[in-house]
Amino acid sequence: MSTDNGHDLLPTAEWPLMVDLYELAMAQAYWAAQHDQVAVFSLFYRKQPPHRNYMLACGQQSVCRVIRDLHFTPAQIERLRQLEMFKPDFLAWLAEFRFSGDVRCLPEGTPVFAQEPFLEVEAPVIEAQLLESLVMNYVHLETLLASKAARIVQAAGERPVIDFGMRRMHGLDAAYRGVRAYKIAGLAGTSHILAGQDFGLPVRGTMAHSFIQSHDDELAAFQTYVRLYPGTTLLVDTYNTREAVDRIIQWLSTDPEAHISGIRLDSGDMAEQARYCRQRLDDAGFEHIRILASGGLDEYAIHAMNESGAPIDGFGVGTALGAASDSPTLDLAYKLTEYDGQPRMKNSPGKQSFPGAKQVFRQQDGSGQYAGDTIAGREEACDGTPLLIPTLRAGKLVPGAIASLDDSRRYCHEALHRLPEALLSLKDGGDYPVTISDHLQELQQATLMSLTGSSHSDP
Amino acid sequence: MSTDNGHDLLPTAEWPLMVDLYELAMAQAYWAAQHDQVAVFSLFYRKQPPHRNYMLACGQQSVCRVIRDLHFTPAQIERLRQLEMFKPDFLAWLAEFRFSGDVRCLPEGTPVFAQEPFLEVEAPVIEAQLLESLVMNYVHLETLLASKAARIVQAAGERPVIDFGMRRMHGLDAAYRGVRAYKIAGLAGTSHILAGQDFGLPVRGTMAHSFIQSHDDELAAFQTYVRLYPGTTLLVDTYNTREAVDRIIQWLSTDPEAHISGIRLDSGDMAEQARYCRQRLDDAGFEHIRILASGGLDEYAIHAMNESGAPIDGFGVGTALGAASDSPTLDLAYKLTEYDGQPRMKNSPGKQSFPGAKQVFRQQDGSGQYAGDTIAGREEACDGTPLLIPTLRAGKLVPGAIASLDDSRRYCHEALHRLPEALLSLKDGGDYPVTISDHLQELQQATLMSLTGSSHSDP
Repeated sequence: MSTDNGHDLLPTAEWPLMVDLYELAMAQAYWAAQHDQVAVFSLFYRKQPPHRNYMLACGQQSVCRVIRDLHFTPAQIERLRQLEMFKPDFLAWLAEFRFSGDVRCLPEGTPVFAQEPFLEVEAPVIEAQLLESLVMNYVHLETLLASKAARIVQAAGERPVIDFGMRRMHGLDAAYRGVRAYKIAGLAGTSHILAGQDFGLPVRGTMAHSFIQSHDDELAAFQTYVRLYPGTTLLVDTYNTREAVDRIIQWLSTDPEAHISGIRLDSGDMAEQARYCRQRLDDAGFEHIRILASGGLDEYAIHAMNESGAPIDGFGVGTALGAASDSPTLDLAYKLTEYDGQPRMKNSPGKQSFPGAKQVFRQQDGSGQYAGDTIAGREEACDGTPLLIPTLRAGKLVPGAIASLDDSRRYCHEALHRLPEALLSLKDGGDYPVTISDHLQELQQATLMSLTGSSHSDP
Repeated sequence: MSTDNGHDLLPTAEWPLMVDLYELAMAQAYWAAQHDQVAVFSLFYRKQPPHRNYMLACGQQSVCRVIRDLHFTPAQIERLRQLEMFKPDFLAWLAEFRFSGDVRCLPEGTPVFAQEPFLEVEAPVIEAQLLESLVMNYVHLETLLASKAARIVQAAGERPVIDFGMRRMHGLDAAYRGVRAYKIAGLAGTSHILAGQDFGLPVRGTMAHSFIQSHDDELAAFQTYVRLYPGTTLLVDTYNTREAVDRIIQWLSTDPEAHISGIRLDSGDMAEQARYCRQRLDDAGFEHIRILASGGLDEYAIHAMNESGAPIDGFGVGTALGAASDSPTLDLAYKLTEYDGQPRMKNSPGKQSFPGAKQVFRQQDGSGQYAGDTIAGREEACDGTPLLIPTLRAGKLVPGAIASLDDSRRYCHEALHRLPEALLSLKDGGDYPVTISDHLQELQQATLMSLTGSSHSDP
């Protein structure tokens, strides 16, 4: 009988074993057959997911550093041996493994569209294949969350959005690395202490209902909090929002020592409550007290509140952001596109892709707006700015290739402003032209022809 | 300018700082005011999420061990000091903090319904409050994934389901702890090496399209793999499934050394392809070769394939399982229900709850089927089996309270069989009677009355 002897906390030191078995099984097969020419793998998604007019590419920089450090310790080699499918010589090879290839990436914060590579790995096939699950897991998570965050920031306009999501995100890793994505996508703060400190996003927090409820008297709870945290934000919906606000106004009006900077609404019709509270606060001379809203918010709710002119000054957003609830996965694929200099592609129904190493060129119009992209072969010269940038070369980080998060945030902010207006709308659709170069289309046709040619159709 | 200096891998050693700021802010306020009587917090969800007739409670055991170990190192105290909101005396208190309270939990694998506590924490309010985000994050993740997994296992009937989800799960923590939830919920295996080994779920894997594509010839790729892994499963849809299967049959028929145990379909109309492949394999005398399906599967697709009588022997499931895509969050709440022996509740619109420490009683009919639950006060005597079980007492694990994962898996399997048939259907709905005891209803009314009484409604 097995006990419950897995780790309760992610055993981070063991991350090289966080890999799908088939990657190591294939690695051994490549190794055994000495089938190890250089391959190009491309990470992309096939079609735009629901409710997303673009995705914000994120996580490439994180995973490049992880790839740089990938190696197996003797204890990890021993764990693999216990699977009883790996030969001692292969495990000896694996014990010496270090990634020796190149990776070219989109800068983090780049708006990206279907079929465009987030990154391309060029390395001996055994090495490139080994990275599959890791690369996908990193880029999938950060891209999902950054893309959702960008929509919420867009809906909030000039008003700050704070991440309250830790509790309902999918594990501690998502809650931590999510904050990195939010930093790039433009959130104003997070409630997550460690992640906020590590990724340079202001750490924010107010109070929970339980704090109020544990006191016999709501006002006494407020007073305790304000004494300790002058200028804090008070949560006013525990029992009755209007009464709470009236009580706060009466108190502040008679106690010149007391001051707060905000109140937080967390339930009910927040636009209507905000209007009431704003009026009451203004009438009493507390124009400087800000009204924050939280509780089940997403970009649609925020947009609706803003449209209605609700006097809300900032938003705390958790669940819908933290799980990207309306589009919680992306059909990211990590696909072989070239082997030993020859273009490769699948021909599975619905899963055709474009062969060969690629580059993405982004064109701008005269006013600096993005006008369209061309996906081309890596060696083609096309109009526009080439987006894929060398990040790892021969297994080492390319000097200067790692951007600061502040720079990525600025780049992302600017890039979003260059997108066609319709793409930034919460409505689905918006037309962004992505062209496949003639060369790539011809290569696809030629590769298809070769697949249906002799070596594959002979029985 | 901040560099990108957060950790690429979750800094697990720093987990005590993976906490929402307000929890520590409230802790200091409780501490400063010496407001620290015993509180009861209850973890539950308010209403059944879409497409879930029950949830499978999971993660309680994991988080109880994490709570037991919760403490702040000197370096972590220093990190908190840098936030410039905590007083030296409070930080000195925090440096000595260890959880001293009690936690009662549902056994993992228990089917649970709206309003029923997954766990209750009873401790000085400062301690109980500190656990909020951690408890929610753990139980939310494992419960979401176990609940989705149970539906997929149910749809697959006797056929094994293998987790292929790591690549599209939300971070490495979700991919790892997900396997724990899958173990309890009844999956047959996982592709995740580390998690499979740690949680005692068989590690499984086949091959990727890229392995085939990197060879000039599909059959040569198959032969290389089978030479190394006799009895393996071959992926047959890279170019043309029917041709691949015909080629395999011709090869196996002429090479008595070669054998495989399965083929895997990963695209297209899998039911139709499976019928073709089954017929061809059977005609050639390969009745023992199993047909596995993967690629975008969920419980609905699996149910439809089974209904159509498709001769598929097992399923690999990734994305839909790994993100619980159709219901990726649960409105879990961690709420104060009692303070200093007095019942407490919120009165926010749409967020009323039941006050007081609780117990859940589950009744069975004569045949052992679950007939209904009663949510009652902790001290009430009701019909049925009390489900909440002491797991931590005075901060220590109660001897015998931690079940093995094999035991939890068996308990879960049996519990699902005891649920009314309609709840196990993929159709929404199914009527499971959950009653609130008279005592609890009266307590709610009395508590409501007190909230609208003098201390709260006087302005």
